[in-house]
Amino acid sequence: MAASIIDSSIFRGIFSSDAMRRVWSDEHRTAKYLEIERALARVQGRLGIIPQEAADEIVRNCDIGRIDMDRLREQTERIGYPVLGVVSQLNALCRDKLGEYCHWGATTQDITDTATVLQIRDALVLVDADLHAISAALAALCRKYRDTPVVGRSNLQQAIPVTFGYKMATILAAIERHRERLAQLKPRVLVGEFGGACGTLASIERGAMETQAGLMQELGLGQPVIAWHTVRDSIAEVGCFLGLVGGTLGKIAMDVKLMMQTEVGEVYEPFAHGRGSSSTMPQKRNPISSCYIHAAVSVVRQHAAALMDAMIADHERSTGPWEIEWISLPETFCLMAGALKQTRHVLEGLEVDAAKMRANIDVTHGLVMSEAVMMGLGPHIGREYAHDLVYDICREAIRLNRPLLDLLAEHPEIGRHLDRPALARLCDPANYLGQAGVMVDRVLASVKA
Amino acid sequence: MAASIIDSSIFRGIFSSDAMRRVWSDEHRTAKYLEIERALARVQGRLGIIPQEAADEIVRNCDIGRIDMDRLREQTERIGYPVLGVVSQLNALCRDKLGEYCHWGATTQDITDTATVLQIRDALVLVDADLHAISAALAALCRKYRDTPVVGRSNLQQAIPVTFGYKMATILAAIERHRERLAQLKPRVLVGEFGGACGTLASIERGAMETQAGLMQELGLGQPVIAWHTVRDSIAEVGCFLGLVGGTLGKIAMDVKLMMQTEVGEVYEPFAHGRGSSSTMPQKRNPISSCYIHAAVSVVRQHAAALMDAMIADHERSTGPWEIEWISLPETFCLMAGALKQTRHVLEGLEVDAAKMRANIDVTHGLVMSEAVMMGLGPHIGREYAHDLVYDICREAIRLNRPLLDLLAEHPEIGRHLDRPALARLCDPANYLGQAGVMVDRVLASVKA
Amino acid sequence: MAASIIDSSIFRGIFSSDAMRRVWSDEHRTAKYLEIERALARVQGRLGIIPQEAADEIVRNCDIGRIDMDRLREQTERIGYPVLGVVSQLNALCRDKLGEYCHWGATTQDITDTATVLQIRDALVLVDADLHAISAALAALCRKYRDTPVVGRSNLQQAIPVTFGYKMATILAAIERHRERLAQLKPRVLVGEFGGACGTLASIERGAMETQAGLMQELGLGQPVIAWHTVRDSIAEVGCFLGLVGGTLGKIAMDVKLMMQTEVGEVYEPFAHGRGSSSTMPQKRNPISSCYIHAAVSVVRQHAAALMDAMIADHERSTGPWEIEWISLPETFCLMAGALKQTRHVLEGLEVDAAKMRANIDVTHGLVMSEAVMMGLGPHIGREYAHDLVYDICREAIRLNRPLLDLLAEHPEIGRHLDRPALARLCDPANYLGQAGVMVDRVLASVKA
Amino acid sequence: MAASIIDSSIFRGIFSSDAMRRVWSDEHRTAKYLEIERALARVQGRLGIIPQEAADEIVRNCDIGRIDMDRLREQTERIGYPVLGVVSQLNALCRDKLGEYCHWGATTQDITDTATVLQIRDALVLVDADLHAISAALAALCRKYRDTPVVGRSNLQQAIPVTFGYKMATILAAIERHRERLAQLKPRVLVGEFGGACGTLASIERGAMETQAGLMQELGLGQPVIAWHTVRDSIAEVGCFLGLVGGTLGKIAMDVKLMMQTEVGEVYEPFAHGRGSSSTMPQKRNPISSCYIHAAVSVVRQHAAALMDAMIADHERSTGPWEIEWISLPETFCLMAGALKQTRHVLEGLEVDAAKMRANIDVTHGLVMSEAVMMGLGPHIGREYAHDLVYDICREAIRLNRPLLDLLAEHPEIGRHLDRPALARLCDPANYLGQAGVMVDRVLASVKA
Repeated sequence: MAASIIDSSIFRGIFSSDAMRRVWSDEHRTAKYLEIERALARVQGRLGIIPQEAADEIVRNCDIGRIDMDRLREQTERIGYPVLGVVSQLNALCRDKLGEYCHWGATTQDITDTATVLQIRDALVLVDADLHAISAALAALCRKYRDTPVVGRSNLQQAIPVTFGYKMATILAAIERHRERLAQLKPRVLVGEFGGACGTLASIERGAMETQAGLMQELGLGQPVIAWHTVRDSIAEVGCFLGLVGGTLGKIAMDVKLMMQTEVGEVYEPFAHGRGSSSTMPQKRNPISSCYIHAAVSVVRQHAAALMDAMIADHERSTGPWEIEWISLPETFCLMAGALKQTRHVLEGLEVDAAKMRANIDVTHGLVMSEAVMMGLGPHIGREYAHDLVYDICREAIRLNRPLLDLLAEHPEIGRHLDRPALARLCDPANYLGQAGVMVDRVLASVKA
Repeated sequence: MAASIIDSSIFRGIFSSDAMRRVWSDEHRTAKYLEIERALARVQGRLGIIPQEAADEIVRNCDIGRIDMDRLREQTERIGYPVLGVVSQLNALCRDKLGEYCHWGATTQDITDTATVLQIRDALVLVDADLHAISAALAALCRKYRDTPVVGRSNLQQAIPVTFGYKMATILAAIERHRERLAQLKPRVLVGEFGGACGTLASIERGAMETQAGLMQELGLGQPVIAWHTVRDSIAEVGCFLGLVGGTLGKIAMDVKLMMQTEVGEVYEPFAHGRGSSSTMPQKRNPISSCYIHAAVSVVRQHAAALMDAMIADHERSTGPWEIEWISLPETFCLMAGALKQTRHVLEGLEVDAAKMRANIDVTHGLVMSEAVMMGLGPHIGREYAHDLVYDICREAIRLNRPLLDLLAEHPEIGRHLDRPALARLCDPANYLGQAGVMVDRVLASVKA
Repeated sequence: MAASIIDSSIFRGIFSSDAMRRVWSDEHRTAKYLEIERALARVQGRLGIIPQEAADEIVRNCDIGRIDMDRLREQTERIGYPVLGVVSQLNALCRDKLGEYCHWGATTQDITDTATVLQIRDALVLVDADLHAISAALAALCRKYRDTPVVGRSNLQQAIPVTFGYKMATILAAIERHRERLAQLKPRVLVGEFGGACGTLASIERGAMETQAGLMQELGLGQPVIAWHTVRDSIAEVGCFLGLVGGTLGKIAMDVKLMMQTEVGEVYEPFAHGRGSSSTMPQKRNPISSCYIHAAVSVVRQHAAALMDAMIADHERSTGPWEIEWISLPETFCLMAGALKQTRHVLEGLEVDAAKMRANIDVTHGLVMSEAVMMGLGPHIGREYAHDLVYDICREAIRLNRPLLDLLAEHPEIGRHLDRPALARLCDPANYLGQAGVMVDRVLASVKA
Repeated sequence: MAASIIDSSIFRGIFSSDAMRRVWSDEHRTAKYLEIERALARVQGRLGIIPQEAADEIVRNCDIGRIDMDRLREQTERIGYPVLGVVSQLNALCRDKLGEYCHWGATTQDITDTATVLQIRDALVLVDADLHAISAALAALCRKYRDTPVVGRSNLQQAIPVTFGYKMATILAAIERHRERLAQLKPRVLVGEFGGACGTLASIERGAMETQAGLMQELGLGQPVIAWHTVRDSIAEVGCFLGLVGGTLGKIAMDVKLMMQTEVGEVYEPFAHGRGSSSTMPQKRNPISSCYIHAAVSVVRQHAAALMDAMIADHERSTGPWEIEWISLPETFCLMAGALKQTRHVLEGLEVDAAKMRANIDVTHGLVMSEAVMMGLGPHIGREYAHDLVYDICREAIRLNRPLLDLLAEHPEIGRHLDRPALARLCDPANYLGQAGVMVDRVLASVKA
């Protein structure tokens, strides 16, 4: 019986992904605790800090299958945190009180934070894979539609023609920037925590720094320069990163929604029978995936703010702010997994109606070519004057519902400088795509493998 | 395998409540769909809009126990929304194609929105009960500690004495305002939705308004003045209300945390063995509930912003904004249920150390009485001058670590106006509680049953 | 030299209003301080708490024109708050040290909070007037276009016809709810503060409650049941209220933007020469006001969250949270003043192209009438079967780009039940407006004067 | 007459800085427009795209002193954006219509975005300088107090001793990470915009890419790989970066506030006469700067969410989302300038009371050494058993208000393993600082010049 959309038996496949939900599941988190306790025992046995016999016995018993999750829940509700419960169960599993050497010198938050970082590492692998796939899907669209005209829109008004490949390339450039951000933040974020009660490792008489170094090496994490129990910029940075990625996905969804409008009809989310259908309006083709993306990223950016709020931690171990992360971090990743999945689905199967794109360019009888005309007239009559003149002619064309070309050709002053064929060339979209293709190629050349 | 904190098998009892999670569960939501379809069939049968035989058959089959939830999940992932899946299953359950009369004239969002309102109604009953209990707990603290001195603090500096009952009464006043807000928003919020595809009830040839009125009466909800499929102020209002309540709970948690500090020690969350214990620091008494409250309400206020974002809906049925509510509304209620529960726990079992409160007043050797002294001297030497003089003497008392009373008594200018017994009276906290008791009584008198 | 958009000499007229900026200006705020000090002196003189001569002298000198604002800035930067600076200047203005009786028993925050409430009162008068004007503009649109068909859109897909008056009425209903919310929150919010250092009025030996009651009466504010220095639900409630209003304005802006699209062209923001023009694309008609509204309310809802954050106040006078209000409250009101002004501008001068609305209904060759057809066929062949059949025919009509009516008339099974004229009636938008008009009338009837 | 706190004549020096406000002022922004138009003319003259004579004339007239700001305001309110007004005024300043060659091929947003990036560059120089200064101040505190014991606190409970240098070093590590983030984001963010109406540079027949490259070189900015008019991840990234820095400043302020509490008294914000004084409580020493920091960063993180919201842009030039940046970006930088300034002030002049720190460690009669005792007993009696035993003795010590050492020494079972001198060593804070010094050195070694 789930209450959150992420865990809902009905909605979880829409708003998240099974792989990501697994990363943040109780089982996975608890398994990470055991993985860390196991690595700690191994390192401390090797360093002679705990008896090798104890290390071996602990390592042998660090098995998620032997943890009683119901009892863990009771322990957690009583104590407030689950780590001590896991340690206590682990201790009980070990023979001859050898389990008392587990968790040696560690504090609850050492284990919890390091587990969180390991979960983040797993989660970022999924995010990375999705970004890679989205990059590939966008690159394919860029190549395929490099020279396919579509009207560019400014303030939801038709402006001048661009190409659909160009439109996709602007977004591809952002995805590549996100991949760069991800690469840059990893060394800051994938750093473990091991410092004892207040981070000083006072709890380990000798071999403290060696334990810390060895533990992190064992886990494949960076060693912290100092404890970060209450200095949470790296966690909040992850939230911001996901929020930024979400912003780009939201932009994609916004454009797909707008282009799928009945009156526009230029692209469609992939068709599946019944998908996006209405119970009463059979003609509709709803941008369902785009809706989910829009909603997910709206909430994700709010969680980014919450994670920055969690930075306002007190002293050496915080009183409330830390728990904000417990709520917001899993939810952020899970919602983003859904949004990334939906975005992949949309982009990998996007239906593009190039003919409708071309037809829409003509819907204003050539008015979208007014800038081209203005630029073409500029050298002859001055740019600002040309601007004002074309502006007036355009308004006249709108009023009369007549093609711009006709009115231009009829205009005596313009006629003095350019004849109808010359004006017709100015009015042809194919002649006004500028550097769209060049720019697409620039972006494609910048894509990392 | 839950990924969200709300549904976590480990944390759900801490961050939410079973009763609230049930309200927002898949089963409960689906049951509400059926409750609405049943009511609709009943009303439309009565009005002769659908055959009575069909109405009876539909009513008979509106049974959550007969819905295949796994199949519903598949249907939802395919269609994008669960209502059509439920209708289709219900239809299949009915004999002789009579089920085709179910959902008559309704659109998916009619059922979803009305179900959401019914869930809100159930959820607000729980919130109301918790507010009532918190009000009662605060009132009890007000009465018990009406005259118990505790130092008032401004900018985390000891200022002047107040009473602990007074401190609780300021918060009780806010809880009472929240209860008033709740009473006022209910008639706006507890309003159903039934309008068909775009809200006009075009789908029902005759008896449309009667169906709407009858359906709402059947469900005990207000009849909408017009459709609100994309006009979502009432849903966002609920989010804001919960955010405001959360703010007050956060204030309570903040004060409890601060008063539980080792250096302060004036109140304690109720003790339970092992509760709030640390794995390494046995002497600690952690404000665990306050931590959870702090974290929950930090996220809840961000969801309030998300729910206002959901108001930016397009046209007659929105494309993404609506789904924000699906994420944020259940989570807001579930987190608040946890925060309310933890607050009740704290307030109903709060340990108050009146002796420590009294001792803390003396920690500054009387400096907290400086305002009283200043006010007492004002009539004799002028208020601003008295202010500056006492300010200087206080700094001197701090420097010398000597009681303020001694320095005052030794001061020649002051001595001209007041003798030591008079100054001692000015320095006695019990003589400087002002209207604390009167104000407590005012608040208690304002509490609604 | 302003850095904020609100005070920018270039943008302030766009993003705010002069009247609202005046309410939150340094001069106005400082004048409120003096108004309160004046009222306090008057009441305390009357009650004999301070000498009548002092009261008279203070009242005489409470003149904003005599405050040295430059010096006040220096004082504020030194002390941290401006009230003490004002009091000190006022004191200096009074003869014979009579000024030392001003601010008697008050604390800085008493004056600041009460001034804020007076500013809120002034600001809400402006908001109220704008809401009233928006209500009137919407009501006029409802009446004028009560029966003007426009296609209803769901998920940005054409769904079924509604009327433009109906569309406006759904929003009008929300504006009326906002006006109700405003009326309900006023008694909670328009309550002054006067409690001294920690709210207990310990600083006033006798006549304390009488002073408080008299001061509030003098200022026309409610008397607080108890101090609210750190119990800020009413301030945050104002932020939430404005955020909710903002959500509705954002919905209006969203619809106007979408309807102004080149491909839709159903309504236009009022035309002004050059307004919304582009420097290079003369044909464009940009929804400029809608852009500003969209942006303003996006920020306002985040400030609502900030104001809820400000509720997490510590003890009797908070350490940081309070100052959040100083930033967010004026900005929220100023941005909303801009959004309200722009919304009025849009609605009062909205250009409606009823012919284009009608033309857009036909753009799908009748597919938007599919629900009507489905409903009409239901009684003959069963609703779910009719749904599936019409769904398939619609997809065929899209594939062939042929009118739905033709395909329906040609279909043998359908032909058995309904002839072409009957089908044509089903396909006529005017016959499928449902209760749109009735609902418009219901909303208009609910409008408060 | 300013309404925003940033521009308030009273508060601007507190909540922002003059240097930062200048960066975002109307004058500075307009000057940037002219700087870009000048660079554009220079490049296009050089490339022969516009006549050299025109280029020279335009360059000559790009002078902020000649712009009529009042007229610009009128133009902006009419057109919606200020760039066209500036271009029009510039045009009018040039002789012989040569001004018509200015702004050649550019669109409004090219100039606005590039100006914004130039402003961001200026603003980041200020942020960088403040981060450098804060880093230096923290490093100085680390060195000076490397071995000064202070109690570490967990959940606001005294836990185990650390050193004050260690406490500062945890934060210094974060500041260094922020400096790394800043260095990494600059190449992504400091990229200009020049693409014409829809980014394709269609408006420039030949030399388009050369113009773009030359313009960016002239301005010292990176050349965009493709237009980013509606792909705003880099702007939002700046908002997130500032939000993250804000989080760290908020953590500093939180600790300062808590350590300045009357009951704690370990550090103080720098003293200035009257600073942080109360109008009625002369003994108080308010953490005024910390209050301002707390408030500023609370709002800044909400603006970060708003800036992510601004990423949801439509098509090639967005309809509303862009304007969110106009509001939030300047405010974010201005508030952060205030918060950084206040933080510098606090850290550079922080008063540290090492004696009070030492005294506070003793306040629990040795209970904060319980972990040390537990760890010391572990090898003798088993860690978990030692934990439970010490836990019980601690509760007994609390109950009896007796020193922990005494109870330990009296305990028969413990006495069997350790004598009183051995127990006294376990109870000495100086013997339980762990790797605090080592870690401080690690952090100091990591600081970039």
